[in-house]
Amino acid sequence: MKKIEDSIVGFIGLGLMGGALAMGLRKQGPGKILGYDIKQAVIKAATEQHVIDGGSSDSAGLREMLPQCDLVFICLSPKDTLAFLTSYMEDFKTGAVITDITGVKEVIIKNLGNHLREDIDYIPGHPMAGSEKEGFGNADDSIFKNRNYILTPLPTNQPENIELIKAIVTKLGFNHIVETTCAIHDEKIAFTSQLCHVIAAALVDCEDDLSITDFEGGSFGDLTRIAMINASMWTELFMCNRKNLLQNIEKFESSLEEMKRMIKEEEAAALIERLTSVREKRIAMGEIRKAKTLKKK
Amino acid sequence: MKKIEDSIVGFIGLGLMGGALAMGLRKQGPGKILGYDIKQAVIKAATEQHVIDGGSSDSAGLREMLPQCDLVFICLSPKDTLAFLTSYMEDFKTGAVITDITGVKEVIIKNLGNHLREDIDYIPGHPMAGSEKEGFGNADDSIFKNRNYILTPLPTNQPENIELIKAIVTKLGFNHIVETTCAIHDEKIAFTSQLCHVIAAALVDCEDDLSITDFEGGSFGDLTRIAMINASMWTELFMCNRKNLLQNIEKFESSLEEMKRMIKEEEAAALIERLTSVREKRIAMGEIRKAKTLKKK
Repeated sequence: MKKIEDSIVGFIGLGLMGGALAMGLRKQGPGKILGYDIKQAVIKAATEQHVIDGGSSDSAGLREMLPQCDLVFICLSPKDTLAFLTSYMEDFKTGAVITDITGVKEVIIKNLGNHLREDIDYIPGHPMAGSEKEGFGNADDSIFKNRNYILTPLPTNQPENIELIKAIVTKLGFNHIVETTCAIHDEKIAFTSQLCHVIAAALVDCEDDLSITDFEGGSFGDLTRIAMINASMWTELFMCNRKNLLQNIEKFESSLEEMKRMIKEEEAAALIERLTSVREKRIAMGEIRKAKTLKKK
Repeated sequence: MKKIEDSIVGFIGLGLMGGALAMGLRKQGPGKILGYDIKQAVIKAATEQHVIDGGSSDSAGLREMLPQCDLVFICLSPKDTLAFLTSYMEDFKTGAVITDITGVKEVIIKNLGNHLREDIDYIPGHPMAGSEKEGFGNADDSIFKNRNYILTPLPTNQPENIELIKAIVTKLGFNHIVETTCAIHDEKIAFTSQLCHVIAAALVDCEDDLSITDFEGGSFGDLTRIAMINASMWTELFMCNRKNLLQNIEKFESSLEEMKRMIKEEEAAALIERLTSVREKRIAMGEIRKAKTLKKK
């Protein structure tokens, strides 16, 4: 793999995430950035804002662009990522490094099967950042600051290409990189991300009083900001990780049920004990993450 | 009621909330601020920092202080508030305005019964602000900025005294004051505050992996910050508002169960529809609150 300053980098999808990644990568001085998005207006805006040097919104343009790209960031939903990889597999440049940002990983690898070319290096990834806003117009690379970046490398990946991706995402602002398997990624993300979105949505869903925010002191806002959800994308993520998500919903329901029982049966001492251990556990979780922060030069 | 600059204001309890309220009130130029806290070290620190002009940590001192106070903020837990009002009812100055900050309201009024003196004006209140931190050392009046303040006036309250409290809390930074009954307060707060704390606690409770924060992208942090809970205080709040809280847990469980069912049965179209309406509802809740913001001069 070439150095970033000699590389042509392609972004497939310039939405909130693709747009923000391209903005951040621009600051790393790449040879050239090319973009593909189904919306021509997005290509126009991204070019005018010098986020990309050029791009296309049609298939012919994409087929011209891909053979030039040394590095490709696929910034699409899981199903679109899979469809893109399947449809354009033959168009990648020999030796190209490909990465993606989807929130579920096994579904892509399993469905790709042996369609993956041996002369390209596909390194699945997942930047743990986002926003309740959508689209290129809301893209902002400051969302990456001090966040986790998960990589789920394949056994065939070249170590130097994994290092390249790590160097890029560190410069983007991510301060902790986790390497794991697609299976573990999907298990863990079902809890930290998908379950949290289901809970937030259910909390808004169950309340009919639109003026309930009169009685809000911060907690309700914090718990439901992510309920302003991209319904199609999250339904796709939920369905693609159905088994893990259902297990996590049930795990959460058991704890909730037990707390409800303690309240119902007025077991104050037991509840104080339980809440004390919850507090300690949550503090420990935060401290453990903090200790893993990459030391910045 | 005298003007604030001629008034002696007493704070009963100088923890996170009492401390922050006293700090904010100091900026309004009261005649004098006196404080009571069971911890002598807190009285010492608050006096040294000029948050209070003097105070006491014992009952004898409290009995000397109360007859001087034109306005009293009781900043204790529900049970302690009730115990304080019962024990020191005879010590208040004739004509004094008394308010409190407890997160449940009916339990106090019901238990006070006819012990409330007719020559004082007790106006129950609830500032909808807080922090996962505790104690005077963490008190900071910036937590009040743009928050809700709920008042649950009694039929006997003097309108001019209600106006006085409103003027004070507006200057403290609260930008929306809600007047309602103790019963409605307790119903609504069971949802916006207590249910949110139970959910946050259950979410931490159900996860055993302390390194789960490796896979965190903001959602888990936002949903569980309030799980760093003051176990005794929140158990007391949950138990004092048990009936309302149990109803709200069950309401939430029904919505969660329905979303789980849609995921289980792969009803993608129905889930997209439901999540779309959740998004719209949550946006509307935010807009409605925003529109009610007090116009600042």
